[in-house]
Amino acid sequence: MFEGPVQDLIDELGRLPGIGPKSAQRIAFHLLATEEADVTRLQEALQKVKIGVVFCEVCGNVSEQPRCRICSDARRDATLVCVVEEPKDVVAVERTREFRGRYHVLGGALDPLSGVGPDQLRVRELLQRIGGAGDEPEIAEVILAMDPNTEGEATATYLVRLLRDFPGLTVTKLASGLPMGGDLEFADELTLGRALAGRRAL
Amino acid sequence: MFEGPVQDLIDELGRLPGIGPKSAQRIAFHLLATEEADVTRLQEALQKVKIGVVFCEVCGNVSEQPRCRICSDARRDATLVCVVEEPKDVVAVERTREFRGRYHVLGGALDPLSGVGPDQLRVRELLQRIGGAGDEPEIAEVILAMDPNTEGEATATYLVRLLRDFPGLTVTKLASGLPMGGDLEFADELTLGRALAGRRAL
Repeated sequence: MFEGPVQDLIDELGRLPGIGPKSAQRIAFHLLATEEADVTRLQEALQKVKIGVVFCEVCGNVSEQPRCRICSDARRDATLVCVVEEPKDVVAVERTREFRGRYHVLGGALDPLSGVGPDQLRVRELLQRIGGAGDEPEIAEVILAMDPNTEGEATATYLVRLLRDFPGLTVTKLASGLPMGGDLEFADELTLGRALAGRRAL
Repeated sequence: MFEGPVQDLIDELGRLPGIGPKSAQRIAFHLLATEEADVTRLQEALQKVKIGVVFCEVCGNVSEQPRCRICSDARRDATLVCVVEEPKDVVAVERTREFRGRYHVLGGALDPLSGVGPDQLRVRELLQRIGGAGDEPEIAEVILAMDPNTEGEATATYLVRLLRDFPGLTVTKLASGLPMGGDLEFADELTLGRALAGRRAL
């Protein structure tokens, strides 16, 4: 549609997730019209992420060091590992301030239709950690904290089957139920069904 | 939420138009997980646009030369100027293959609530062109091709008032009416009203 560098930039922006051709065009023209300093800042941010961010060798979370802040923190309980899909899930769990253990980031959820099988996720690394690799103490409990959707549930089911082979390991899963602050009448039937099935004695 | 370079990139991406915090996060993690070559291509595209793209000194369209391809083309009728809001509108008119004149890109539409007045648009440059600056032949007709919305209509009304001062200049505006390929019953009342008011004898 356009020519030369402008179209190249539109094409590159259009490759990013969630950005269609119209958004790519809008962003490209925004960048054309914007202060040069803004474009430079974006370029520098890309550069820093490319050279300065790695995935933690233990848990797979994003990190500026080979071993991330949480995995390096001796005060965090290394016998308790929360398995999540993505780095942003680590941030979500950290925000609760309820969890003092460590993490394992899978890098996604099983999704065979998109070509994501166990080999595309950090499943082998999880089994190695539980098997007791390196200088870490033995893991006593694994908390499965996948997204409560089809792919997440499938991933949890798959992991439960693998983790059964480790004697003495407790495997738990986040509770499903009514979200806090919501109305019972607006809960979908799946959530309400889970809340009923998981009801607790008081 | 995150720390260091990752959060910096999320912040920079979040400054782009139409990208909220969630999208920015998604794009940042996509870029983290993607091939390094993809990030490099995006960086290079940004760099090329920053150094290689300018605005045409005559019409204000994006260009790789001081004077754009259309303004440099002697076969295009320089006495006929189509005034549009944005470079992408030039592309839209070019696609019709119906227009053999030149363009004038305003760089937006009047929108006082967002601080866009005549001084933020290339209105003065348009008046200078019509007044006969440089080596160009005199402009005989100006076609106003603003977006058919409130801001576009306001801009067209404003320009018509200014252009009245040039004796001998014809000022026209794109026809409003039913879009081709649509259903009459689904046309909104404003469009149908314009189509009625602008009905033509056959």
